[in-house]
Amino acid sequence: MGIATQGAGSGLPGGLATALGERFGDRFQQGQAIRLEHGKSETHFAPMPPDAVVFAQSTDEVVEAVNLCREAGVPIIAFGAGTSVEGNTLAVQGGVSLDLSRMTRIVAVNAEDFDCVVEAGVRREQLNEHLRDQGLFFPIDPGANATIGGMASTRASGTNAVRYGTMREAVLGLTVVTADGRVVRTSRRARKSSAGYDLTRLFVGSEGTLGIITEATLRLHAIPEAISAATCSFDTIAGAVDTVVQSIQLGIPLARVEILDDAQIRAVNKWSKMDLPELTTLFFEFHGSERYVAEQVETVKELASANGGGEFRWANRTEERSALWKARHEAYYAAVNMRPGAIGWATDVCVPISRLAECIGETKAELEASSVPATILGHVGDGNFHVVFSIDPDSKAELEEVQAINARLVRRALAMDGTCTGEHGIGLGKQEWLEEELGDAVDLMRSIKRALDPTNMLNPGKVFQL
Amino acid sequence: MGIATQGAGSGLPGGLATALGERFGDRFQQGQAIRLEHGKSETHFAPMPPDAVVFAQSTDEVVEAVNLCREAGVPIIAFGAGTSVEGNTLAVQGGVSLDLSRMTRIVAVNAEDFDCVVEAGVRREQLNEHLRDQGLFFPIDPGANATIGGMASTRASGTNAVRYGTMREAVLGLTVVTADGRVVRTSRRARKSSAGYDLTRLFVGSEGTLGIITEATLRLHAIPEAISAATCSFDTIAGAVDTVVQSIQLGIPLARVEILDDAQIRAVNKWSKMDLPELTTLFFEFHGSERYVAEQVETVKELASANGGGEFRWANRTEERSALWKARHEAYYAAVNMRPGAIGWATDVCVPISRLAECIGETKAELEASSVPATILGHVGDGNFHVVFSIDPDSKAELEEVQAINARLVRRALAMDGTCTGEHGIGLGKQEWLEEELGDAVDLMRSIKRALDPTNMLNPGKVFQL
Repeated sequence: MGIATQGAGSGLPGGLATALGERFGDRFQQGQAIRLEHGKSETHFAPMPPDAVVFAQSTDEVVEAVNLCREAGVPIIAFGAGTSVEGNTLAVQGGVSLDLSRMTRIVAVNAEDFDCVVEAGVRREQLNEHLRDQGLFFPIDPGANATIGGMASTRASGTNAVRYGTMREAVLGLTVVTADGRVVRTSRRARKSSAGYDLTRLFVGSEGTLGIITEATLRLHAIPEAISAATCSFDTIAGAVDTVVQSIQLGIPLARVEILDDAQIRAVNKWSKMDLPELTTLFFEFHGSERYVAEQVETVKELASANGGGEFRWANRTEERSALWKARHEAYYAAVNMRPGAIGWATDVCVPISRLAECIGETKAELEASSVPATILGHVGDGNFHVVFSIDPDSKAELEEVQAINARLVRRALAMDGTCTGEHGIGLGKQEWLEEELGDAVDLMRSIKRALDPTNMLNPGKVFQL
Repeated sequence: MGIATQGAGSGLPGGLATALGERFGDRFQQGQAIRLEHGKSETHFAPMPPDAVVFAQSTDEVVEAVNLCREAGVPIIAFGAGTSVEGNTLAVQGGVSLDLSRMTRIVAVNAEDFDCVVEAGVRREQLNEHLRDQGLFFPIDPGANATIGGMASTRASGTNAVRYGTMREAVLGLTVVTADGRVVRTSRRARKSSAGYDLTRLFVGSEGTLGIITEATLRLHAIPEAISAATCSFDTIAGAVDTVVQSIQLGIPLARVEILDDAQIRAVNKWSKMDLPELTTLFFEFHGSERYVAEQVETVKELASANGGGEFRWANRTEERSALWKARHEAYYAAVNMRPGAIGWATDVCVPISRLAECIGETKAELEASSVPATILGHVGDGNFHVVFSIDPDSKAELEEVQAINARLVRRALAMDGTCTGEHGIGLGKQEWLEEELGDAVDLMRSIKRALDPTNMLNPGKVFQL
């Protein structure tokens, strides 16, 4: 794009820069470093910095920033923790990156109603620390310590989704600033409603292209009486997947069940100093009463054993459990860092669970034939898995090989009636696949985008081309 | 409206009537009886018949009907079982009622994936009969034997929602015919996806105003190993509600928990020939393994006892359980028929569960001071309850009294951060309350409506006024 080489804020109209400076003071910044920080990606996308960054501290400030940008005809891109992986917050057309990470107020916790209201910049770890003493937790766990606003915007999910759902289920309502500068609340705090169109779910997953989320009301859950976590290694990928499918068929409410292939386990062992057998492995977590957890474990152990699983290695003390899930959360970094100086290239598909073993198996065979190191890991209970490539940033050949493998992976998932992204979103990286997946439905999305953002100022160039 | 007194099909342009007649033969009907059948309500709304009825048998036929109506500038109203209660399918501007109830094909059951694909006219009882032999069930249960298309359109829920969610969670994807006659599929069959805007959830609950649902992919669940049902009477409404709230706080996954007030129990005893104590009563159902159900029951019994609950009366044999839930499903008719010649007037609010006892208590006090017979029943685990009035259809005074009580009930729910409808939808009856509940958000809905249905041909006059 060449933006990285431009002078500070060179692309912003002078009038807008003056107005933002007057309004936001030192929370309006045009320096090269801060722009780069808001214009880089966790993965392989080239940096595309915004022309300036505004740090908002309230919904009213978001309204003001949106109004000023709209009047100046300049794009505005909501920014949270910057942990998305499909280039979702890159400033492809320049403009203002609106950083919400200082909006960290936990507005209310309604313990009896199992909900809370938080500002968009609250991060999931902050929220769970806040909730712990009240016996509650927020289950959505994409790995990264993302902001709630960002997680809502990409419809994030992660390790707990098999039991507790995704951001689609976790968000009860949103406060959103629209392109025309209005503040709307998409729903009340009731657990369910048939009152009009489901604007909450429309904004969840819209990647900041329809409005800017400034507050969210979230469903919470009671911390279970008992939590047990374990790992179990399998001779075959099919054995691991079948164990999960059969557990779900028996109604076992697995709280977490993650698959890591042998390559991923090798990376985890090295990065997180673990000593797991270097085979396809399931990471389990069981929630419930003491008795119910014991019953779940008994059934799943039997199924695992019948499917070629080894011994269960338990992590029942809180510290052991934390170490296990920390290792899982760092799996991406573990995979990328198998090669010194490499960068990550992550993809994400989701298929009906009946096709998962086949989809992973065919993908694994391709990866083994490739010269680029790669691992497979995923949320097997949902049919969702990722491939993480560790690529040489200077090798065009590797990039092309990875793109070709990814294209075949996505087409394989689509042929199985799956989706091109289970939880990462479309951003820049999956736009051609969105068209292939949903066809004319993407035109409906365009109509909605034009209706709610007629000047295309909100995170332009993402999800689809207008 | 006076439409009921018009001659058959008098409002339809001649060219359209000819074209529909040529295309649909005897599945295009303009007779008075069939029009009235498609223009009446289960509740107090005056009949508003369409000018004609078309029975569609396929998605392609829906496309053709939509195209012909659009070209003629005539409204089209999707019609399923006609069991909605807010006038959702009445032909306020005349036009064509598009009856989908003959689209009853169960296209696929993917047992391993816990999903199925059905046409919009499939009714929930038909689906569950079809699924039973495979050990699966579809949990959404609004009482009436509604069609899946209608249930999706009103975002229906009912007795199982506390455990299994509503149509919001139950619908994985939809096939929809748009106003411009295109067929779109809103998602693939993967259990979760971050691929673009959530069109599925946008169409769920849009009451036929954004497109016509012709097919749905639904999430299914395994029939649990053990099912236990019971009733328990309480001295006070608060005692019943507190029992439920505390059960949920302890993580008990109640499958069903319904509240019926003393008046409703009297009606049920008479209508369904039951002999329940005429007190506020909870109807419970527990799902799980034998051991887990026993554990749930033990805990809930303790809580009920501590909150002034009486003995649990069990209905464990399939026939006993069916009789119990049949009585619950007929509760509306039981309540209406407490007075000979009366008609029903049903309302529906949902509040945060912490406010439920207060909301029901204040409402109960008002009902006791009213001269119109009324009952309270609801899905207490969701904070959702209904009031059913049994009104004299010829008494303007009763209608006005009921409207006033309803207005105060809705305002009470909104003041508690609740919603004006938990599951019935807006239709005609709740439009003013939608505005009061969501304010500017309704303008966003209007923008979306205009974008997807620029000529306002799809079920015009519903949800909001443009």
